[in-house]
Amino acid sequence: MKNIVVQKFGGTSVADIEKMRHVADVIIQEKENGNDVVVVVSAMGHTTDHLVKLAHEINPHPSERELDMLLSTGECVSMSLLTMALQTKGYKAISYNAQQIGIITENVHTKARIIDIKTDKLRKSLDDGNIIVIAGFQGVTTEGEITTLGRGGSDTSAVAIASALGAERCDIYTDVEGVYTTDPRVVPNASRLEEISYEEMLELAHAGANVLHPRSVETAKQYKMPLRVRSTFKYNNKGTLILGVEDMEINKPVAGVAADLSQVRVVVCDIPDTPGEAAILFGSLAKENISVDMIIQSYARKVKNDIAFTISKEDLGKTQEILQRVKEQLGAGDVSFDDNIAKISIIGAGMIDRPGIASTMFKTLADSGINIRMISTSEIKISCLINKEDAQKAVKALHEVFNLGCDEIAEVKGTLPDV
Amino acid sequence: MKNIVVQKFGGTSVADIEKMRHVADVIIQEKENGNDVVVVVSAMGHTTDHLVKLAHEINPHPSERELDMLLSTGECVSMSLLTMALQTKGYKAISYNAQQIGIITENVHTKARIIDIKTDKLRKSLDDGNIIVIAGFQGVTTEGEITTLGRGGSDTSAVAIASALGAERCDIYTDVEGVYTTDPRVVPNASRLEEISYEEMLELAHAGANVLHPRSVETAKQYKMPLRVRSTFKYNNKGTLILGVEDMEINKPVAGVAADLSQVRVVVCDIPDTPGEAAILFGSLAKENISVDMIIQSYARKVKNDIAFTISKEDLGKTQEILQRVKEQLGAGDVSFDDNIAKISIIGAGMIDRPGIASTMFKTLADSGINIRMISTSEIKISCLINKEDAQKAVKALHEVFNLGCDEIAEVKGTLPDV
Repeated sequence: MKNIVVQKFGGTSVADIEKMRHVADVIIQEKENGNDVVVVVSAMGHTTDHLVKLAHEINPHPSERELDMLLSTGECVSMSLLTMALQTKGYKAISYNAQQIGIITENVHTKARIIDIKTDKLRKSLDDGNIIVIAGFQGVTTEGEITTLGRGGSDTSAVAIASALGAERCDIYTDVEGVYTTDPRVVPNASRLEEISYEEMLELAHAGANVLHPRSVETAKQYKMPLRVRSTFKYNNKGTLILGVEDMEINKPVAGVAADLSQVRVVVCDIPDTPGEAAILFGSLAKENISVDMIIQSYARKVKNDIAFTISKEDLGKTQEILQRVKEQLGAGDVSFDDNIAKISIIGAGMIDRPGIASTMFKTLADSGINIRMISTSEIKISCLINKEDAQKAVKALHEVFNLGCDEIAEVKGTLPDV
Repeated sequence: MKNIVVQKFGGTSVADIEKMRHVADVIIQEKENGNDVVVVVSAMGHTTDHLVKLAHEINPHPSERELDMLLSTGECVSMSLLTMALQTKGYKAISYNAQQIGIITENVHTKARIIDIKTDKLRKSLDDGNIIVIAGFQGVTTEGEITTLGRGGSDTSAVAIASALGAERCDIYTDVEGVYTTDPRVVPNASRLEEISYEEMLELAHAGANVLHPRSVETAKQYKMPLRVRSTFKYNNKGTLILGVEDMEINKPVAGVAADLSQVRVVVCDIPDTPGEAAILFGSLAKENISVDMIIQSYARKVKNDIAFTISKEDLGKTQEILQRVKEQLGAGDVSFDDNIAKISIIGAGMIDRPGIASTMFKTLADSGINIRMISTSEIKISCLINKEDAQKAVKALHEVFNLGCDEIAEVKGTLPDV
């Protein structure tokens, strides 16, 4: 039996017919290497954004079920066109949507989790000599409802399919050359990491490195599926391999520095200091699928607490609604929102058992005249919330102090992020 | 139990967000009349053409399976947007694609026939108070392959769904006000028919009146489903009701005149006059799903025959390939193709048992100096093949001789067909 390689191509990789032809060549190269190839594809270019815009034009609050029905079409378009491109080049290829395969998810719209993937049809198709092209980002419930997997959903589709098929590895093709020590648009001598552990990648992703969505990395970690992030447009590039920490050698305490500008700080003041208040607050948010990141509860000075936390900007509207309601229930005081913030994180599996990393970070920021507004830490990550305008300066200083640069200037496309 | 009304809206009716909002109002009016409403919708405006163009850009001969995968997305986009429009206006609505419902077709791509429609999900959804919006034009095989129904497929979807649900009637909303005695762009005083029989409508449709696809009329006839063709953009218009000939009174021998400019005449010369030759010829075409219309075989003068027939322009490429092959097999002579033709037909259930209609037609054409190249007749239709440049003159003359005009000038949008 042949090895199976799963390849995922994002929207920029299949943005037009010319790029699709190139992607077909990348796929064919892997097939010619003697592997069975399963491809997962995103919607072309800005298709999804365009569909979301149409939906909001017709309904300011479109139903999530119908939004999923709508958005799932984008991947079906690119999947069939890419299949045609492969057929033009003389290869047997076939496309499948999630309903046809049975990519089963929980019954949640716009950010469903995959719970099962049927492999019968896929294996039969591979045995028939096909290159398989699958619509990413979408799933179907056991009742036949169409769901989507949320941000970075196609990455998750790819990893889950690779795991279900017992693939040799899963290659995530994108418009960058791999995972960098930090954003090369901010620090020009940022270096590409040859390897990084799932855990570090997870923290990097959560900390705002947009290369891979955390859920896809979590899934890969769970099934020990080696992931390679590599460039669609450079042949034979090695990219960055993401694998188990037990399989890699750790050199540096800090692997990377990340900035996340997409968060909003929420402060709920004067919450009565009685048991269960935090549970009510965060329970209400969780019920609406709102992810909360950093949480800080101030010391109870008297009988009331302040609780500060961060959420993603896209959840701001929903959060405001919920807090308006929950505030009464809690008997809390003012609620304030601040989006003029940046979360700066240093990540490294090597920082375990190496004291002094955190203090180096704080001192470096202080020396740069940057005020720290919140701090949170995990085993392999330290994050500081600072003012947005200091983000670039902070990343540069931390990248230097932890000696992450390489001698070369990374070749970077795209524009500087608006920090 | 409420009566069910099925409404079908074509691509021009849902071409943009503004038109969709209007269509939502039309649907709501029917709902407010106390009926359960099931809507079948086509792809927005020129979506399907755009997708076909993309497919041909990437592959000059795209696989029909992948073409179906691609094209079926168009209806899914319009169905979810229309559902959102209904929800904005405060109505419960839900969309379904063919896979979800189980619109089962035979295993043929690009022009599949519906063989079964599951109604469980639809009935449950109606019982829950929903307006249902269904993607037209698409189906699914028992193996889960996605198919499309070919030209006018959404009309067929609507009629088949109406029949499966035992609907009271099926309304085909379109950009014309009904079925006319002939194309009002050619004959300005063409009159709208109040009623027409399935049989006449079938002959009209086959003869080139583009209001309804023949297959949808056939299906309606089979299940005795009353069909109403009416305008999307004029409220409370009556349109034309299509029903069983037994339910209508016949006044005039001829109900309408139609011109079909989309055919190509094919002549295969010198076919040996031995049994089975015609079967081989037309069998090879049928195997590739090519519909043949008028067929004339010349008297065998010696040992060889000429066979002439007409096909649709879109099948020309395929037909040329097939004939190249079959010609050898038959030992036939030259094969020629001529697309400078028009098929002019007069249609009327009233011509049964009324002699003289055919001779009036031939004489009228002769008096207008128009040469007849082929003739074919059915019980309720007489068709003549003439030169394309004579089409407009022929239609006008026949419309007048059979007294089909009304006193008013029909209000017509669109441009004159290129005849």
